[in-house]
Amino acid sequence: MTEIQTILDHLDAGLPAARDRLFALLRIASVSAQPTHAADCQDAAGFLKADLESLGFSAEIHQTAGQPILLATHPGPSSGGPHLLFYGHYDVQPADPLNLWTSPPFEPVLVDGPHGPRITARGAVDDKGQVMMWIEAFRAWHVVHGTMPARITVLIEGEEEVGSPNLEAFLIAHKAALQADIAVISDTGMWDIDTPAITTRLRGLVYLQINLHAARRDLHSGLFGGSALNPLNLLTKILGDLHDADGRVTIPGFYDGILPLAPEQAAQWEAMAFDEKASLADIGLSVPVGEKGLPALQRTWARPTADINGIWGGYMGEGSKTVIPADAHAKLSFRLVPGQDPAAVFAAFEAFVAARLPADARVEIINLGASPGIEVPAENRFLHAARAAMSEEYGRDALLIGSGGSIPVVESLHRLLGIESLLMGFGLADDQVHSPNEKFELRCFHQGMRAHARLLGKVKEALLF
Amino acid sequence: MTEIQTILDHLDAGLPAARDRLFALLRIASVSAQPTHAADCQDAAGFLKADLESLGFSAEIHQTAGQPILLATHPGPSSGGPHLLFYGHYDVQPADPLNLWTSPPFEPVLVDGPHGPRITARGAVDDKGQVMMWIEAFRAWHVVHGTMPARITVLIEGEEEVGSPNLEAFLIAHKAALQADIAVISDTGMWDIDTPAITTRLRGLVYLQINLHAARRDLHSGLFGGSALNPLNLLTKILGDLHDADGRVTIPGFYDGILPLAPEQAAQWEAMAFDEKASLADIGLSVPVGEKGLPALQRTWARPTADINGIWGGYMGEGSKTVIPADAHAKLSFRLVPGQDPAAVFAAFEAFVAARLPADARVEIINLGASPGIEVPAENRFLHAARAAMSEEYGRDALLIGSGGSIPVVESLHRLLGIESLLMGFGLADDQVHSPNEKFELRCFHQGMRAHARLLGKVKEALLF
Repeated sequence: MTEIQTILDHLDAGLPAARDRLFALLRIASVSAQPTHAADCQDAAGFLKADLESLGFSAEIHQTAGQPILLATHPGPSSGGPHLLFYGHYDVQPADPLNLWTSPPFEPVLVDGPHGPRITARGAVDDKGQVMMWIEAFRAWHVVHGTMPARITVLIEGEEEVGSPNLEAFLIAHKAALQADIAVISDTGMWDIDTPAITTRLRGLVYLQINLHAARRDLHSGLFGGSALNPLNLLTKILGDLHDADGRVTIPGFYDGILPLAPEQAAQWEAMAFDEKASLADIGLSVPVGEKGLPALQRTWARPTADINGIWGGYMGEGSKTVIPADAHAKLSFRLVPGQDPAAVFAAFEAFVAARLPADARVEIINLGASPGIEVPAENRFLHAARAAMSEEYGRDALLIGSGGSIPVVESLHRLLGIESLLMGFGLADDQVHSPNEKFELRCFHQGMRAHARLLGKVKEALLF
Repeated sequence: MTEIQTILDHLDAGLPAARDRLFALLRIASVSAQPTHAADCQDAAGFLKADLESLGFSAEIHQTAGQPILLATHPGPSSGGPHLLFYGHYDVQPADPLNLWTSPPFEPVLVDGPHGPRITARGAVDDKGQVMMWIEAFRAWHVVHGTMPARITVLIEGEEEVGSPNLEAFLIAHKAALQADIAVISDTGMWDIDTPAITTRLRGLVYLQINLHAARRDLHSGLFGGSALNPLNLLTKILGDLHDADGRVTIPGFYDGILPLAPEQAAQWEAMAFDEKASLADIGLSVPVGEKGLPALQRTWARPTADINGIWGGYMGEGSKTVIPADAHAKLSFRLVPGQDPAAVFAAFEAFVAARLPADARVEIINLGASPGIEVPAENRFLHAARAAMSEEYGRDALLIGSGGSIPVVESLHRLLGIESLLMGFGLADDQVHSPNEKFELRCFHQGMRAHARLLGKVKEALLF
């Protein structure tokens, strides 16, 4: 029996116990956004600390201005070798609206689905389930071999779902302790349940809030309609201008600097034959939006967007109130692609608004976060190792895909510590991330821990390093 | 001493007692919109019933599906003569936001202001204070002469502030009892504190809510941005199209049927030299909106508008949430002028939206109220009598003005009972109607009751009738 087969058999035999450990972690309601759950966040960090210590790690919980960060290290084999940094987050999104859950969000259950049993709970896949995959791989190596096959640092934060406000300061303060050859992150998805994938492109994000102010107080729309500026009329006029008839963003300079997509990358995505119609049908839609004439995967992985994420102002209750409000508000995000400068995009939006602002309106535009689009270099030894590990586990080639989402830590690790990331994820498109009834397929959890164990095996194989 | 002077002296001497009676009514928190105040609405109706009965009226409270309606009648002199219908409402707007009041809204106080003492309380001017003006005029006639100078019917409803949902059915059911030669309504304003005014034009109103629906559920803006329809983007695109660069409403057919403003009316308004700059400066603005090239009073009294009164959808909390929501909502109102058909305007807006609706969006447009613009015939004997009464009281001509607001009962009385209205109001522009610190100048209350007493005197003068 090969060394790796022993490890995999151990994982297979231990699946029920691994699932129980994940369930225990899922029962901790570590919602970072809600101050009432601060103690739960401490508990989740403590749970993971104890578990890693039981596997031979030295672990420490670092308090921050927000939720604590867990840092753990394992020296690996005395022979040295590569150094891996595993990043994850123990915090979860708020569970509301609670009435849409079929079971309580913090009482994990196994439910039968089309792919076999699935784990339903808040955080099942994002990110507790995916963190526990690699911890289970560590456990198998620990039990079978008494040590890890490489030097390992573990960084698990508790504020990913609120924009990681304290992470960068932590990275800077612990720069030496965090040095590694690669960061391994499992917070992304597969192509489908049979086809593994490594994410090599992420979109960046500029998130902002715009507040428009007009009159000093709310006005009666009968007495002032036709005389006084209505900030809701103005807000829709400005934001209604964001896209042209071809779905392109009209902000001058918005597309500046975008790096062209490599033709071989485009060809590879095209070959994946993504069924956008089916993806849209699944959410009740039929007609794609975005820039006309571009394939679906380019639109969501390699082109920037402008989306209003929230809007409010005036009377929002039952019935009618004839008010011209004093203020109007919206939240907007721009997804960015490599080459776009987040600061330039923010400034371009400011100029776009200023050009449409009448004398009587005042505006505040608040920057709520900015990170650039990222492309992970496709040519590195860890990516090859991961691709081999995943391909062997699934019996088919792991695809190199993009993601329309943003994982700011990837950019932070690169910029502050010079570390590239390897995004090995096991979620599925229908996992209901951030929504009621979030789930993680038990099969994904199981194969994910096997794939991570295989990656550690590849790292150990001398020929690779 | 003339007959009317005796009445006026009586009103002057009784002002403190009249103010106390108004204070007693203002202490009843008869908020029609809030079910917790249902008993207060009954109390307010009961208070007015008892007061009118003490003046020789027969009065009855009629329960409705909502708040009760008070109907009272006085036979007037045995000689017959004209028949006046006085309409008012005892209900008031909710008082919130409470923290902006300088004194509790239902504990009326006299506060010194630039025009002398003012009464501060919810309902001070809208409409309890204005109702009590004519009741005090009745009282003076009752005390001095033992009867009313004309046949009088009083109709005081309790749901004006929630759109009078039960009034029209009541008007139809009590058609015979409500027959009158004219309706007298004091729910409008003066030109300024020295210059009385009669309102002869009111704008109508179409109020609606639009709900846009896209995907079946909220989506992650990273994963779906560039593929899935965002109903907030769509809503701003549609509503941002409502006005052109000249401030005109772009809905095809919107301006159809508008009756031209008589040149002499336009000239009269122009002569009033309304200081729009000062009116806007008072609320912190400086540049008028509305149709370019039109004088201010025409824009607010004789031209229709489109205003968004409320908008909401997606994430409205602190910080950021990268959501493409399933739904988007707005409330809109169109102020209408005589000649516009409210049903046609509603249909034109439906067509405007339909023309901009992509295949994946569903829309609901809910009609929350519709009434046409109104012009009161300037040539009628009651208008002459009222103008004379007000001009004598103030020592200067009462102006014939318009209002940008809507008083749907005026249209209902005309359409259902064939009764024209006489809008004799004593509010001022800075009375904070529907806002915190609503007030009514004591001088307006006093001169208003004197003007009403004078009107009754004019009605009695045989030469007028």
